[in-house]
Amino acid sequence: MKLIDGKKIAADLLGEIAREVNLLTAQGKRPPHLATVLVGHDEASETYVANKVRACHNCGFDATVVRHDVDVTQDELLATIDRLNRDESIDGFIVQLPLPDHIDEQRIIEAIDYRKDVDGFHPINVGRLALGLPCFPTATPQGIATLLDRCHISTEGKHCVVLGNDHIVGRPTAELLMRKAFPGNCAVTVCNGDTPHLEDLTRRADILIAAIGIPHFVKAHMVKDGAVVIDAGTTRLPVPGEPGHYRLHGDVDFDAVAPKCACITPVPGGVGPMTVVSLLKNTLLAATRPALLS
Amino acid sequence: MKLIDGKKIAADLLGEIAREVNLLTAQGKRPPHLATVLVGHDEASETYVANKVRACHNCGFDATVVRHDVDVTQDELLATIDRLNRDESIDGFIVQLPLPDHIDEQRIIEAIDYRKDVDGFHPINVGRLALGLPCFPTATPQGIATLLDRCHISTEGKHCVVLGNDHIVGRPTAELLMRKAFPGNCAVTVCNGDTPHLEDLTRRADILIAAIGIPHFVKAHMVKDGAVVIDAGTTRLPVPGEPGHYRLHGDVDFDAVAPKCACITPVPGGVGPMTVVSLLKNTLLAATRPALLS
Repeated sequence: MKLIDGKKIAADLLGEIAREVNLLTAQGKRPPHLATVLVGHDEASETYVANKVRACHNCGFDATVVRHDVDVTQDELLATIDRLNRDESIDGFIVQLPLPDHIDEQRIIEAIDYRKDVDGFHPINVGRLALGLPCFPTATPQGIATLLDRCHISTEGKHCVVLGNDHIVGRPTAELLMRKAFPGNCAVTVCNGDTPHLEDLTRRADILIAAIGIPHFVKAHMVKDGAVVIDAGTTRLPVPGEPGHYRLHGDVDFDAVAPKCACITPVPGGVGPMTVVSLLKNTLLAATRPALLS
Repeated sequence: MKLIDGKKIAADLLGEIAREVNLLTAQGKRPPHLATVLVGHDEASETYVANKVRACHNCGFDATVVRHDVDVTQDELLATIDRLNRDESIDGFIVQLPLPDHIDEQRIIEAIDYRKDVDGFHPINVGRLALGLPCFPTATPQGIATLLDRCHISTEGKHCVVLGNDHIVGRPTAELLMRKAFPGNCAVTVCNGDTPHLEDLTRRADILIAAIGIPHFVKAHMVKDGAVVIDAGTTRLPVPGEPGHYRLHGDVDFDAVAPKCACITPVPGGVGPMTVVSLLKNTLLAATRPALLS
């Protein structure tokens, strides 16, 4: 069994991105600039945003955080988005989700100029991904595809089973793997926790991608010997007996499943570190090839 | 084995649409208006356009065909699209594909205002379909979903295998069936002719949807006893010994497969008649609820 070291692969990729930024600034160009809109002070959101800002700085990107109080009105938030859409010094921006209940999340996402939508949540980017056109792919699916690529895991002619059919991870990951490209060119099954006889499907997977959001859901009997297992689960649970401390839990019962696998990602340190890489890759793309999406 | 009579179901649905149009005009509103842009005189395209115009007239729609010679320039075609986008008397329009090689098909599709894109090919409609938002679904996938609905074929908890991964039928059909809706809520596998051990997958299908474009590709040994088989293949081949005559061929070896099935669609007379219904449904939606997509 080979452990897929997402942390190291992400660090390598961030190094490559930093070198590209150096080349840009050496040519007298300004560095890529990512803005993040953060509403309120949710602890998990603060952590995620801080990670993104740190990664930006490590790669030489400019990073701006636009903060709003939790009682910001939808119109105020739309005004911020309009300003960021028009600000030529900003290449891409994201709105950290979730938003408070009084805000229509979909309305906010659709207000973002798709050419700056580096999270890849705007319907145009979702559609362009499905159609195989240049786009900003959603972060986690792109991270998974990059992991497979960097680990030289062939998908060609394989059967890939994606456990989880949400819009953020499961379905766009399936779309990426169906493409006539690398990684891609494989048969893809998308199923979820309600699928009857689920283990009959997951046991057929050459590559099993777990994105169901239920800690330790995938047990050993659900996995074929020699499978590649990618765990995109990131459920954040308090550590028993350690108030204020949290730990990330994957969707895979790692200790039981790992011995059966050809390769497997751990949680943390597998898919997670790749998502911020995807975000920076998208922002670099927005900065250097803005015409690609026009 | 039950034969799914797409011709009758389509006729029923066109009757329902016609009644809705009658209600509209009885209220003093104008009927829905579909325009079709046709470049050149390709025989198959002429037939398809004539079918659409006839269906429009039968339902009380206004129908306009805008013709261009085969040597129309891309700019001229874009000017036509711009005019149709701005023409408030036209609710929806389509550009009959394929276009001549000197025209950038994708550029033309993206020039269509997505709120009038009743073929559902614009990236925004593709993305909105994937995201479960109101949209104009592509005609054939919507037709397949409607057939399942009208035949009371439950998809809930079933395993649906889609054979074919193109952007027009295979992948959007998979997207529709993955939705948390009816029809939907099922495990979906998308595979293609290159998938190794393909019959291992197709034989697992409770519902098998063939959209691979290879006549009679699906043989009896590839189908489970009691499966529902939907044949979206429409390969048009000359009739031997009858010059100038053509016949549509499905992807399924019907005579061998049909005895094994719970239900099956014939070709012609299965999925085919449903596609024009989808187009008219989308146009009616555009005419009556234009705000839905704004």
